Amino acid sequence: MKVNGKDYRTVWMEGNTVCLIEQNLLPFEFKIFRAENYRDTCMVISTMIVRGAGAIGATAAYAMAQAFLEGDNDAGFIENARQEIENTRPTAQNLFYAVERVYRAGQLSTGQFSTEHAAKEAQQIADEDADACKKIGELGNELIKDGDKIETHCNAGWLAFVDYGSALSPVYAAHRSGKDVFVYADETRPRGQGARLTAWELKNENVPHVIIADNAGAHLMSQGKVDMMIVGSDRIAANGDVANKIGTLEKAIVAQHYGIPFYVAAPVSTIDFGCASGTDIPIEQRHQDEVLYQSGPNANGKLETILTSSPGSDALNPAFDVTPARLVTAIITEKGIFNPEDLAVLNTQNSTTMD
Amino acid sequence: MKVNGKDYRTVWMEGNTVCLIEQNLLPFEFKIFRAENYRDTCMVISTMIVRGAGAIGATAAYAMAQAFLEGDNDAGFIENARQEIENTRPTAQNLFYAVERVYRAGQLSTGQFSTEHAAKEAQQIADEDADACKKIGELGNELIKDGDKIETHCNAGWLAFVDYGSALSPVYAAHRSGKDVFVYADETRPRGQGARLTAWELKNENVPHVIIADNAGAHLMSQGKVDMMIVGSDRIAANGDVANKIGTLEKAIVAQHYGIPFYVAAPVSTIDFGCASGTDIPIEQRHQDEVLYQSGPNANGKLETILTSSPGSDALNPAFDVTPARLVTAIITEKGIFNPEDLAVLNTQNSTTMD
Repeated sequence: MKVNGKDYRTVWMEGNTVCLIEQNLLPFEFKIFRAENYRDTCMVISTMIVRGAGAIGATAAYAMAQAFLEGDNDAGFIENARQEIENTRPTAQNLFYAVERVYRAGQLSTGQFSTEHAAKEAQQIADEDADACKKIGELGNELIKDGDKIETHCNAGWLAFVDYGSALSPVYAAHRSGKDVFVYADETRPRGQGARLTAWELKNENVPHVIIADNAGAHLMSQGKVDMMIVGSDRIAANGDVANKIGTLEKAIVAQHYGIPFYVAAPVSTIDFGCASGTDIPIEQRHQDEVLYQSGPNANGKLETILTSSPGSDALNPAFDVTPARLVTAIITEKGIFNPEDLAVLNTQNSTTMD
Repeated sequence: MKVNGKDYRTVWMEGNTVCLIEQNLLPFEFKIFRAENYRDTCMVISTMIVRGAGAIGATAAYAMAQAFLEGDNDAGFIENARQEIENTRPTAQNLFYAVERVYRAGQLSTGQFSTEHAAKEAQQIADEDADACKKIGELGNELIKDGDKIETHCNAGWLAFVDYGSALSPVYAAHRSGKDVFVYADETRPRGQGARLTAWELKNENVPHVIIADNAGAHLMSQGKVDMMIVGSDRIAANGDVANKIGTLEKAIVAQHYGIPFYVAAPVSTIDFGCASGTDIPIEQRHQDEVLYQSGPNANGKLETILTSSPGSDALNPAFDVTPARLVTAIITEKGIFNPEDLAVLNTQNSTTMD
């Protein structure tokens, strides 16, 4: 997608170097990080210079490809590198899946290693992620009418994947196909991914949008100013329950109250068929300081962290919530648009890609 | 109510001086402003050192009393002062009502002025506000069970009135009567009145509480962690529709979804019988910078204003929303607890206090 008019992916390879948008600097600075070896790339993942399931998976795949290059047929080196890469984000399912695929691809039946096969597989993983997101955009675009006003929560844009994104992919497809679309980007407290990342993406793609406080959603819906909501997901249970950024559940309830379609867009890899329902998804409690403090540049461009709440009071900070399937109008995947109750048909089709 | 263990009102008179908590400095600094004459007191209102309908009304009443003292029987001076006071916040209904009452009380049938009568009336206005809020607390307390967890939005505490508050008054009454109560204070973006003022009040009264991002409400309700919501109101229409801080509507919808009681606490003076329904209440659109920027002290205690969103994107900032009567379980007033549809009975009873 476009940044300052130029096409980018979140992560790509140039020779033996993994190049990444430094997402931790966004939206205030746009910079490319160049990871010259697999250890640099591990650091990029563990320090969250890259974030988002799809983007992490591709980065880990590239890191594994780098390890084959650097390992020079040394089985111990490659095995050790694999473990290092896997330890960067111990709960990222896409990461394990990607590393495993590249690791296997790089081992020939002769017992020797192939850096070429490993690199090719890593590139394919990145391309598959981009292709899946692009397809989500094409399918989702069919749900969008000219003139639609679309509310989204958090950032499920291309920054979380290799390209295109999930929730924003249909928006980009609609915009590029000439439809007049307008986006309300929920600020998404406490971390502000909507105000920071979604707004940044939309501005760079010239998609008309405004940032709104999360509190403003119901008011706008009550006034008929929202035609649909599209959100992404961190994990979808087999029964169609959707785990996503805190506040998603609230929006789904309000959207249903006003009869506004509530779509979830996610690649099939987000569906966890090993997870029967949303009650099996643990909700991460994050540090209270994310609620109590805020960071950003002051008028002189100096990054400051300020206290935005009453000193000495504690905060509770659940990071995700679970939206029950009955509140979800449809789930937009690269394999089609599904009623949340009908996801099971995807299980056998994609058993090879699930872990 | 208590601040650092000592009892305060938001505004009071000492001799000819109006004393006020400097609310614009809260929660980071606690300071008393001393307005020595009516012009100082006007400045206090216009610069929002004092805010909240009840607190503004009492402050304006005291300002009018000061004008009688300073006017020394000069009709022109007193009339001029009256206009100056009325111009401080041109849309504050409580202000006009309070000024009018003190102005009338200070004029004797002989054509002369009585500074004593004016001062007495001003004090009565302040006491009436405090008494109404205290009564709201006593009545609301009957709805609260031992162990209840109560969510509130924005700040409808004593800082918005002379004492006790509206939404928080039942909480204070319950806490003081020995009930175990716990409050979830919605942060209340964009201006953060919950994180800043409600949390500050609750901490000073030793009421157990946490601040939550506005996004966390539905999640907590879905987990059975919220027993009721109590909010205040800026204006209640004759049909029971409730205008309040942006995000209130969202909470009411979510509360209804989970079968959680949603109470509105407000003095009868908040009910505007001249306003048939919520659709007649105009929604103030405030400056986008309230959403895009945040202010607070950095680690060195220096107040900083920082950008918390993507540079160059605009924000939409509706300040209030309207919750339809059907989503309101009951309205707690000093005259009793009412179904929102039954407010009309209060109309004749209180016609003298409405404008």
